[in-house]
Amino acid sequence: MITPRKRYLLTPGPTPVPEDVLLSQARPIIHHRTGEFREVLKQVMEDLKYVFQTQNEVLIFASSGTGGMEAAVVNLAAKGVKFLTVAGGKFGERWKEICSSFGVDFVTLEVEWGKAVEPQDVEEILKSDKNIKVVLTTLCETSTGVVNDVRALAEVVKKYDAILVVDAISGLLADELRMDEWGIDVVVSGSQKGLMLPPGLGFISLSQRAWDIVEKADVKAYYFDLKKARKSGVNYDTPYTPAVSLIMALKKALEMIKEEGIENIWARHAQLAGICRNAITSLGLKLFATRPSNAVTSVSLPEGIDGSELVKFIRQEFGVSIAGGQGKLKGKIFRIAHLGYMNIFDLLVGIASLEFALHHLGYKFELGRGLLKVEEEFLKQYK
Amino acid sequence: MITPRKRYLLTPGPTPVPEDVLLSQARPIIHHRTGEFREVLKQVMEDLKYVFQTQNEVLIFASSGTGGMEAAVVNLAAKGVKFLTVAGGKFGERWKEICSSFGVDFVTLEVEWGKAVEPQDVEEILKSDKNIKVVLTTLCETSTGVVNDVRALAEVVKKYDAILVVDAISGLLADELRMDEWGIDVVVSGSQKGLMLPPGLGFISLSQRAWDIVEKADVKAYYFDLKKARKSGVNYDTPYTPAVSLIMALKKALEMIKEEGIENIWARHAQLAGICRNAITSLGLKLFATRPSNAVTSVSLPEGIDGSELVKFIRQEFGVSIAGGQGKLKGKIFRIAHLGYMNIFDLLVGIASLEFALHHLGYKFELGRGLLKVEEEFLKQYK
Repeated sequence: MITPRKRYLLTPGPTPVPEDVLLSQARPIIHHRTGEFREVLKQVMEDLKYVFQTQNEVLIFASSGTGGMEAAVVNLAAKGVKFLTVAGGKFGERWKEICSSFGVDFVTLEVEWGKAVEPQDVEEILKSDKNIKVVLTTLCETSTGVVNDVRALAEVVKKYDAILVVDAISGLLADELRMDEWGIDVVVSGSQKGLMLPPGLGFISLSQRAWDIVEKADVKAYYFDLKKARKSGVNYDTPYTPAVSLIMALKKALEMIKEEGIENIWARHAQLAGICRNAITSLGLKLFATRPSNAVTSVSLPEGIDGSELVKFIRQEFGVSIAGGQGKLKGKIFRIAHLGYMNIFDLLVGIASLEFALHHLGYKFELGRGLLKVEEEFLKQYK
Repeated sequence: MITPRKRYLLTPGPTPVPEDVLLSQARPIIHHRTGEFREVLKQVMEDLKYVFQTQNEVLIFASSGTGGMEAAVVNLAAKGVKFLTVAGGKFGERWKEICSSFGVDFVTLEVEWGKAVEPQDVEEILKSDKNIKVVLTTLCETSTGVVNDVRALAEVVKKYDAILVVDAISGLLADELRMDEWGIDVVVSGSQKGLMLPPGLGFISLSQRAWDIVEKADVKAYYFDLKKARKSGVNYDTPYTPAVSLIMALKKALEMIKEEGIENIWARHAQLAGICRNAITSLGLKLFATRPSNAVTSVSLPEGIDGSELVKFIRQEFGVSIAGGQGKLKGKIFRIAHLGYMNIFDLLVGIASLEFALHHLGYKFELGRGLLKVEEEFLKQYK
């Protein structure tokens, strides 16, 4: 085992939290029904609009990202509104599970895991079933490393007078997303990904078209009642106790994000993801996702290498957390994230630990190849 | 510039401080004249004996390591006691400066910078001048990266009824040092090196032979009065206000050190230093120190590369702090530390940033060579 053992979080959530954000989170708790806290909430609600690229309010829940997904489903489940869920991975499946839990009327478009949804497949379904008014999809499907073309999906959905709901939990800030410009109606996210925060906050933003459905719906929600949250939000307040420390941390993280600039953040994720993919293929490994996200790189396991063993070995021996496969991909792929507070050196650590482990597990490759590729690709793009 | 910018401290002090130590330091201040604090002081004074490998008490000052050096000189400056200072670098020179400041009678053995002191050279001087009763030398000469053979020096000094004082500020925990077993009379150190702490604490430990001189001396010291410090230390107290937060941090750091074990810590430093030297020479660069320390690797600058520019470039562009040359070595060498809370990944970051910078500055070498060497050497020694 490597000593001293340090932790390297190269998983697609949770991701590393900057020290300044941790220190903000460690500050004394202030009471939430005060002007002081409302000032904080006002600022973060304003800054979140920038991150979501929207003029709509972004509501914050003390919940995981899944809470945001549930909020979307239950609040949009108006009478006569049929849903289309796009599968294609564990988180696409989650839309189905949530719809089932609440008895929502829905159909599913199955997508082969590892592939992105084809906008024309969505179009065909919308064309054939005019009752479908809500399409639930995913920006980055974390389980497969695929990024869906939500911009194209939004164009299709708009034609059929439906709304598009995007789970951007792991994709936000890694894969480009322009909510208003692209006409996306609902965007959901969570804190422990590109936002560089600990887990514990869920986010949701809705367009006017989405609010129109919510207003008409006979919503069976209490904690995740969006109308109530919106009403409180007008006064920079929350219906129930907010996660004060996380909101303090969020304020700091958003300052860092504004300082770097969202275009630069997207570009950095694209650069790291591109370098990671090049390093992976230089080791003779195959990429799993046909349309890879900038948040996470999924890799098919070579013959004879056990995925769970690989991930466990890297974590136990080197303190480096990468992710294995989920659901039906368990043991078939592994995933290296380059999401949030990461730079080229984090990627070097990830590739080095992978080379060490592959060497140890008997995979044949040219040692150092991956690291050289990281250096070469970095220098190509370095200004 | 690399974003997000993270700090990588690869200097021979200050060195990275583990999160658990930082958190201990952040705890509320307790009053120092209390049983609670005395318990802390008792524990750290006990644990420091292990680090110094001695049964003698280790005294703690709120000072830099240089305070410990001054304490040694002023307390040993008894009438008729002549000093021999061993030069050979900026910190060997410091012994001269301190002796001069206090009007101490001393001679100096000049040693070529980059070379270790030859024990027989010390012997010749001691043989020819029987008034010399105190020899001041350095374990790791931080400015040149040389480690002196203090064990052999102790044997020589003992023969002439003199005492050996070792500045182990940067060497402690990196280069093997066994105070009692090797018969070293005085060991001085500081907090911001192998002890993995922020700067602010100086340490000194004296053998009975050294105390015998101190007892006889008409000491002109107030803050650094060792007799006073020893007297307070018996009751786990200090004459003046101790640096409470740093002592709390020290307690935690010492727990980590005991858990890893001093032999393992020495071995880890030897391993990292060996790998670093191999990586450096694989890039066609030349090592500067003929007897290299395990704390820091000093490297001669290749023709046409400006040392200050190299160090500045690496820090400004990559957030990685390595050290340039000091004193007459300014602009002639650079130094990469592998000291304290560091593992193989820290070394990878150091070598990668060096490769990036050398490439940028036009030095001709095979890109990736250094990183490959780090991997190869690591895997050789990895169990």
